[in-house]
Amino acid sequence: MMICTALVFFMHLGFSLLEIGLTRQKNTLNILFKNIFIITVGLLLYCLVGFNLMYPGDFNGYLGFAGFGLDAVAAADLAYNKGYTYWTDFLFQGMFAATAATIVSGAVAERIKLVPFMIFVIIYVGVIYPIAGSWKWGGGFLDKLEFYDFAGSTLVHSVGGWAALVAVWLLGSRIGKFKNGKPQAIPGHNVPLATVGVLILWLGWFGFNGGSVLSAEPGVTSLVLVTTCLAAAAGGVVAFLASTILYKNFDLTMFLNGILGGLVGITAGADQMSPTDAIIIGAIAGAIIVFAVSLIDKLKLDDPVGAIAVHLICGIWGTLAVGIFGAMAGWSQFASQLIGVLAYAVICVSSSFIIFFVLKKTVGIRVSEREELEGLDAHEHGMSAYPDFRMNEH
Amino acid sequence: MMICTALVFFMHLGFSLLEIGLTRQKNTLNILFKNIFIITVGLLLYCLVGFNLMYPGDFNGYLGFAGFGLDAVAAADLAYNKGYTYWTDFLFQGMFAATAATIVSGAVAERIKLVPFMIFVIIYVGVIYPIAGSWKWGGGFLDKLEFYDFAGSTLVHSVGGWAALVAVWLLGSRIGKFKNGKPQAIPGHNVPLATVGVLILWLGWFGFNGGSVLSAEPGVTSLVLVTTCLAAAAGGVVAFLASTILYKNFDLTMFLNGILGGLVGITAGADQMSPTDAIIIGAIAGAIIVFAVSLIDKLKLDDPVGAIAVHLICGIWGTLAVGIFGAMAGWSQFASQLIGVLAYAVICVSSSFIIFFVLKKTVGIRVSEREELEGLDAHEHGMSAYPDFRMNEH
Amino acid sequence: MMICTALVFFMHLGFSLLEIGLTRQKNTLNILFKNIFIITVGLLLYCLVGFNLMYPGDFNGYLGFAGFGLDAVAAADLAYNKGYTYWTDFLFQGMFAATAATIVSGAVAERIKLVPFMIFVIIYVGVIYPIAGSWKWGGGFLDKLEFYDFAGSTLVHSVGGWAALVAVWLLGSRIGKFKNGKPQAIPGHNVPLATVGVLILWLGWFGFNGGSVLSAEPGVTSLVLVTTCLAAAAGGVVAFLASTILYKNFDLTMFLNGILGGLVGITAGADQMSPTDAIIIGAIAGAIIVFAVSLIDKLKLDDPVGAIAVHLICGIWGTLAVGIFGAMAGWSQFASQLIGVLAYAVICVSSSFIIFFVLKKTVGIRVSEREELEGLDAHEHGMSAYPDFRMNEH
Repeated sequence: MMICTALVFFMHLGFSLLEIGLTRQKNTLNILFKNIFIITVGLLLYCLVGFNLMYPGDFNGYLGFAGFGLDAVAAADLAYNKGYTYWTDFLFQGMFAATAATIVSGAVAERIKLVPFMIFVIIYVGVIYPIAGSWKWGGGFLDKLEFYDFAGSTLVHSVGGWAALVAVWLLGSRIGKFKNGKPQAIPGHNVPLATVGVLILWLGWFGFNGGSVLSAEPGVTSLVLVTTCLAAAAGGVVAFLASTILYKNFDLTMFLNGILGGLVGITAGADQMSPTDAIIIGAIAGAIIVFAVSLIDKLKLDDPVGAIAVHLICGIWGTLAVGIFGAMAGWSQFASQLIGVLAYAVICVSSSFIIFFVLKKTVGIRVSEREELEGLDAHEHGMSAYPDFRMNEH
Repeated sequence: MMICTALVFFMHLGFSLLEIGLTRQKNTLNILFKNIFIITVGLLLYCLVGFNLMYPGDFNGYLGFAGFGLDAVAAADLAYNKGYTYWTDFLFQGMFAATAATIVSGAVAERIKLVPFMIFVIIYVGVIYPIAGSWKWGGGFLDKLEFYDFAGSTLVHSVGGWAALVAVWLLGSRIGKFKNGKPQAIPGHNVPLATVGVLILWLGWFGFNGGSVLSAEPGVTSLVLVTTCLAAAAGGVVAFLASTILYKNFDLTMFLNGILGGLVGITAGADQMSPTDAIIIGAIAGAIIVFAVSLIDKLKLDDPVGAIAVHLICGIWGTLAVGIFGAMAGWSQFASQLIGVLAYAVICVSSSFIIFFVLKKTVGIRVSEREELEGLDAHEHGMSAYPDFRMNEH
Repeated sequence: MMICTALVFFMHLGFSLLEIGLTRQKNTLNILFKNIFIITVGLLLYCLVGFNLMYPGDFNGYLGFAGFGLDAVAAADLAYNKGYTYWTDFLFQGMFAATAATIVSGAVAERIKLVPFMIFVIIYVGVIYPIAGSWKWGGGFLDKLEFYDFAGSTLVHSVGGWAALVAVWLLGSRIGKFKNGKPQAIPGHNVPLATVGVLILWLGWFGFNGGSVLSAEPGVTSLVLVTTCLAAAAGGVVAFLASTILYKNFDLTMFLNGILGGLVGITAGADQMSPTDAIIIGAIAGAIIVFAVSLIDKLKLDDPVGAIAVHLICGIWGTLAVGIFGAMAGWSQFASQLIGVLAYAVICVSSSFIIFFVLKKTVGIRVSEREELEGLDAHEHGMSAYPDFRMNEH
């Protein structure tokens, strides 16, 4: 579990590299700054309020709070005995909490103002995410409805994905993204770093899914790692094949997003699937990615890193797949999954809309046109990401 | 074991970074694409056929097959009890399988056509590697001959290295590598990434060798980590000293390849050596690297990343070293090691020759001169690795 | 423990990336070379003499030596039984030993001669570090005085930090660092890599502090991970807030150094603190960083990566904090901590002064002005870090 916590922590590096790799050089520091902010502030907030909002003990199923801080309940440590300690539990869940905001960070990159984004992070990670989480993992009403989400296709990925969708819609697209209604490619500045990011994320998923077994029971844990890896592989291969057929081009970015889609897709039922199920779920996720990226473009939504396709759409797919494949398949389970998806849609869309709408009407959420064109690094951070990079003479 | 699997997975990132770091910018995406293809397709193939070719149960010692897919034999899970599960075993071995093809990828970089390379990967990883592996790890005829290869100096590294040698020979050298018969340095584009790659590979070797103990027995596992690290250190230091003396230059690339040579060299006998043995084996591997790199140049073979020196030549050295140093040393063991090396030379050279020769005579294996000069990224992927990278004004 | 050793090994990658990221492109290979040298030679030296100097068994409390090499004492393995093996112990401690020199490497970057630095590393890592370490972890006189240093705020970080201070003072500042007595910013060449470095270091600290529990006792280990992460988060946030208020700028580098300061600060007492204590200690470390960086500039000391502020000053703070916060707080403990800090100041400052002073007066420790201006990569290594990096036409 502790190793898994370390791996989930490492996912934040993966997200950071994926995001900066797929975006332009002039906004690199800004993205890194946002992500470092999310990790550090997210962890402190989860310590202060989040953990006790998410795991309030006995509660009404919708909202409960066990008090501020960890120390207040540390005595509970002694009675804790599920194969991991109270502290491990806190840290593992805390690392997850920050992930939800990181997903948003990628979608709003290159045009959001830093301070309003920070305010969003504080509210969303500190309050909304743990309340939403309590509905299932805290033993709330969705848990009683038999909704199942093993490691967070919905509780983590969709929670981030819905907010990303709302934010992208309220923010508007980057300057130059749509010309005469046609989407334009805005290539990032460092595809190798994006590739590193995806492989680190895959590695982190060993911890994300592996650790969610919440014990070191080797049979289940190892099956989870196998389903996770096979879904990732299938997602990548299908996205690569589909995009090669459609666009006559070996597109590395699509391959990478297919892998992520497969990973998000298997996350809700990683412990319930056979290897064959996992391959099918991942393959469908890979196909979804190719079409979702194109659909999002058609809807005139500008998501620089593909976060909505990967985390929201594949998150929904993975959650529903628990009712279709594997040990839990069945209409009743499918209905529970659908109710869960809808419940999270409601809380995430409404809360993130309120937050971003209020921010937009007060401090504003978008940088000035000049700042966007010249880059956020120069304006918000007074520096560039590669200040001393020089070319060699050839 | 599961953690070790994660670390071996991470080695693919190390290989990718090493390869792109030591090659030119214009071929970066192509190399990343190949490596992502190898990991994903390799894992799916290993699930479909490889695992059951490599571990066929009772068989004639040369070729056996336990059937398609994992599910067919998953029942065996229940009876599995060697300190790790059936699933862990599959995933750990599957991560190894892909490694063999990654080694080839580096050697043929910057000039091989993508589709024929993919066909080679499918056949070599899907069929040849597991059949060759069954001879020893599957309990085949080399296992009965007392041939010893702890974690794959021969079964993984030489299997990749022999195919790399054949491929490099059939492909020919890159344009500009030899002028009037003299080898020319073709520097890579990102030495820091290559360095990151080597350190990640070293980290991965903790899992590669540590996990090959196939249990969490702390005494052997920890000895294996010590011998692994000391051989790496000795290999690096000797390669650095030798190259400094020979070429009057502190050559970081040679230092790094010496580390890799030491790691490959210790792999066959990591559990059989004392720390002193490990240092000697690593040191000799480091010296071998310096001379092998120069020899390969003299043979007019063009191996951009030094894969043949590191994986083939140090792989052979490490395999033979089991008969010379440590707990198993002796003439009879040395003879077994030599037979093993030769057996793998025969299967790998002949099979990879047939595959590449047929591909060469049919679809062709080499890109056009124009494509090679302009870079594979632009032609095969329609993109560049750093599309938005801009210089600062100074 | 073995996993923790792997993570501590990985910290060397973190240090390397942090250092090259914050320094200029023309010295990148040189820094990587130094760090690879430190890891490999450090490990071999620790095997040859260091381990037996640091853990000499019963000794006079100041200096003892159990003999050369590991094999001599390997029999002790059988009697070893503290939840980890003799081999694990060696490797874990060996990875720490190299860290002390890596800290110095960052501070002296961009102007130190390679060979004298290597000589310093051999003496400091091979002899001084283990002798100093024996005073506490080897059961020496400071251990008997109840001095406490859980994972090396003093024994590792200050030991590196003091030598860094001495080296920076004897070396002098880089050309152009001070103009008319005013410090000038010399921006590094790759802030993303520096950020990667810090996140890898944070990950490594899971192993550094987690492994220092020296057992897999889940209660203490998991508390240590929580205190470690909370201190890191608090350090980062406070450094970011303080620097934003002082300099009206969202400074990513300060955020990152604040995280490192928090990590160094918690290291001495990570197992003795409550989460609240950890947050306070980290927060103070974050504030210290902002002021220490400015103070070091005022003292005309040129430390390109902030190593003195992070490792020395926060190392001292963390060591003293054991006497102020947490389970051991009290005047008597504070006095022991102060004695420990002073004892290490004496041995480290005097020994590193002697080494660098002798080197300065004999072979010289500073490169020529021309070499400094043109870069160490071109002069010492005959190569550049990004030899084939090309710009795209826009």
